[in-house]
Amino acid sequence: MSVDISLVEELRALLGADNVRTSAGELTPYMRDATPLFSGTPDVVVFPADTGQVAGVLRIATRHGTPVVPRGAGTNLCAATVPLRGGIVLVLTRMNQILEVSPEELLARVQPGVATARLADEVSRFGLVFPPDPGSRTVSTIGGNVATCAGGLRGLKYGVTRNYVLGLEAVLPSGEVIRTGGRLWKDVAGYDLTRLLTGSEGTLAVITEITVALLPLPATAHTGVAYFETLADAGRAVAAIIADGVLPSTLEFLDHTCIGVVEDYAQLGLRRDAGALLLFGDDGPPDMVERHVARMSDICLGQGALDLTVATEVAASEALLAARRCSLPALSRLNSLTVLEDASVPRPRLPEMVERIEAIAARYDLLIGTFGHAGDGNLHPTCVLDADDADAVSRTHRAFADIFAAAIELGGTITGEHGVGAAKLPYLRDRLGDEQTALLRRIKSAFDPTGILNPGKLGS
Amino acid sequence: MSVDISLVEELRALLGADNVRTSAGELTPYMRDATPLFSGTPDVVVFPADTGQVAGVLRIATRHGTPVVPRGAGTNLCAATVPLRGGIVLVLTRMNQILEVSPEELLARVQPGVATARLADEVSRFGLVFPPDPGSRTVSTIGGNVATCAGGLRGLKYGVTRNYVLGLEAVLPSGEVIRTGGRLWKDVAGYDLTRLLTGSEGTLAVITEITVALLPLPATAHTGVAYFETLADAGRAVAAIIADGVLPSTLEFLDHTCIGVVEDYAQLGLRRDAGALLLFGDDGPPDMVERHVARMSDICLGQGALDLTVATEVAASEALLAARRCSLPALSRLNSLTVLEDASVPRPRLPEMVERIEAIAARYDLLIGTFGHAGDGNLHPTCVLDADDADAVSRTHRAFADIFAAAIELGGTITGEHGVGAAKLPYLRDRLGDEQTALLRRIKSAFDPTGILNPGKLGS
Repeated sequence: MSVDISLVEELRALLGADNVRTSAGELTPYMRDATPLFSGTPDVVVFPADTGQVAGVLRIATRHGTPVVPRGAGTNLCAATVPLRGGIVLVLTRMNQILEVSPEELLARVQPGVATARLADEVSRFGLVFPPDPGSRTVSTIGGNVATCAGGLRGLKYGVTRNYVLGLEAVLPSGEVIRTGGRLWKDVAGYDLTRLLTGSEGTLAVITEITVALLPLPATAHTGVAYFETLADAGRAVAAIIADGVLPSTLEFLDHTCIGVVEDYAQLGLRRDAGALLLFGDDGPPDMVERHVARMSDICLGQGALDLTVATEVAASEALLAARRCSLPALSRLNSLTVLEDASVPRPRLPEMVERIEAIAARYDLLIGTFGHAGDGNLHPTCVLDADDADAVSRTHRAFADIFAAAIELGGTITGEHGVGAAKLPYLRDRLGDEQTALLRRIKSAFDPTGILNPGKLGS
Repeated sequence: MSVDISLVEELRALLGADNVRTSAGELTPYMRDATPLFSGTPDVVVFPADTGQVAGVLRIATRHGTPVVPRGAGTNLCAATVPLRGGIVLVLTRMNQILEVSPEELLARVQPGVATARLADEVSRFGLVFPPDPGSRTVSTIGGNVATCAGGLRGLKYGVTRNYVLGLEAVLPSGEVIRTGGRLWKDVAGYDLTRLLTGSEGTLAVITEITVALLPLPATAHTGVAYFETLADAGRAVAAIIADGVLPSTLEFLDHTCIGVVEDYAQLGLRRDAGALLLFGDDGPPDMVERHVARMSDICLGQGALDLTVATEVAASEALLAARRCSLPALSRLNSLTVLEDASVPRPRLPEMVERIEAIAARYDLLIGTFGHAGDGNLHPTCVLDADDADAVSRTHRAFADIFAAAIELGGTITGEHGVGAAKLPYLRDRLGDEQTALLRRIKSAFDPTGILNPGKLGS
């Protein structure tokens, strides 16, 4: 597709020449996001400064029938921001102001380009916390987090991004600006567009302002680590902890493969003979946290934990969590291509799901390590392979198709927190069925009748 | 509109004659819901037994172009289930099975006709709690709660119904059955139809099965009551409590009018000279609760509370909460017509909103008492008047129009938890704007292209 000269001229008139890029070198960084194996070449990359400019870009794009791919930091893992059909990549990182933090109202109002960790840091200065904590939070933007309904390590106790979005300003492809929700804890006036836009992956509207709910910062957090002979044993400990009436703030696992790979990488002193490592923890008032973590420790030991350590200092807690946080880098360095995937199953089916993944890895002769969120049944099977080995790449695709089918068979889903994007779209119908898939298309049309917003993704 | 004989015959063939009612006496109870001043006469009332029968009714209705009004117990306060255009009232109370309670997965799977309190009682036997607690919960159905995204007294700490809906089965007007979400704490596969249907007030689809998340039952709950000279003083105490880092499970208020009316009615020993009564409380582990409630008491006294009592036993807590729970019956007995309304403002604007309501009541010479949720800014101005006094009825309509305009002006909304229905529809455009109102209509069409589902309500 050749660049439409008048389109570029109109964009330059609107945004200034500096904020409209068309040279090959300037386009290259926007061909990909954090998803391997997907790329597309934009015709033009634009950097609007405010909502009015976003609306202007969308009006121009609608007039020209040009695709628009909204993008934050591009950290997503489902090719949600790859410009598969060219067109305009609309980068929101210039809109990076924290407009307001209100400790009295327990909320913050931010532009979409604010990095998630920056928001978290800023609100922590007021004794507040923004609970969603996706792995990419130091780089990812809050706009991207809302667009994908990002999750993180605290899903069971605190929920995910959707639980913290109070209101949105968003621009429709027509250039019309809507405001949903607001500074309100209760609001049922109209369909819940706030939640509908959350997780809509840039296919319905472009989010230009976000009001998020905050919580009081917990006084302390303690973490423990327990080793089990098998993931099934760890799963029984998780079930017993939850049956005991505690919702832990941390409940993460590593499988045997990840334990070995992490230990090779970081020498944390992990027990290599264990079949599973379980991180558990809670946050809140010190006396309650101490009691909860002690109780969880007892339960783990009662369920046959091989070994157990508890950290009651922040630094020591962070050291234990390092095993979980460096699972991905530890796996990634093993070969040239890392495919980090995402599926979710009902919590009790998690050990069975990991067994299925192990069997699939063996069947396709692939190295797949699995880590994830034992508390909410969300797991991340991660395959490392040689990018130049076409056969291995092909086997990986087939292995993940089998993994998603297994997740659905166990009552689960093809993505718990990463999103659908282009990467999971081929599997979406298997999860939702024909009727719901058709309904998603009709909803997409209600927002974007000409289909210019992020084509080839959700709603296509 | 005369009854379409073939429509009724088809419904009888599908459901059996006993479950299809057409006589005037049988239709009367379904002309109204709990909203005063709204009524409509259905042509036929049907009682399906399962999802297949619901789908059959919708297919028949679509073929005949007949309106369908889904209904649970009819406790809603916004005329959401009044059959304004006749047609079929589809009553879901026969679908009243609690299909499953899973303590291991912290969820329950229920049919829509289960009474909310019955669900709460059943899960409490497993040491679990379903947090949403709308005032009508002993009668209202969980299907109706989901359809209106019902709130309750614990919104600030626990959120509202939408926060607890994990998955839905729903039937589209075409008769197609969709399943959204599931037994999953994380699921981002597709647009968030679970939340879109929650609060859609029977205008998009008929909900036939609900999977709800549950929480561990808190070990204890303590409640305190504080009197203040003015609502502004109470508002300062609320702000100070939240700034102190606690999210109370209870934070309710009564204005001066309500205090007097409740005391007349129930002789609870309330302080009649106070301008505001604030109920506060927390739930959780006993040591934490005791500490939080003591801290809240200190803050109230520091903010000039006239008087203060704390209850640490369940029975004594319930006695204090009685002042809040009997505000509505106490007001209702004063005259023949009670209009209980619902608006929501940012929490710090609540005292100002109550002052506005007082001024509006004076301007229109009406008795309006206001009580509500100080923690989440959701208030219930309640007007009592003579139903036969046409001028008072007219003044009431004008007063509430002013009240909703005031709420919007203060950054609030026209309904926090009751819903839009037919009663609030005239004010919806003022809240959402033209663009969003048009968008709601397009979304409605995506689900219900021929407009048979609950016409004259949301999305119209």
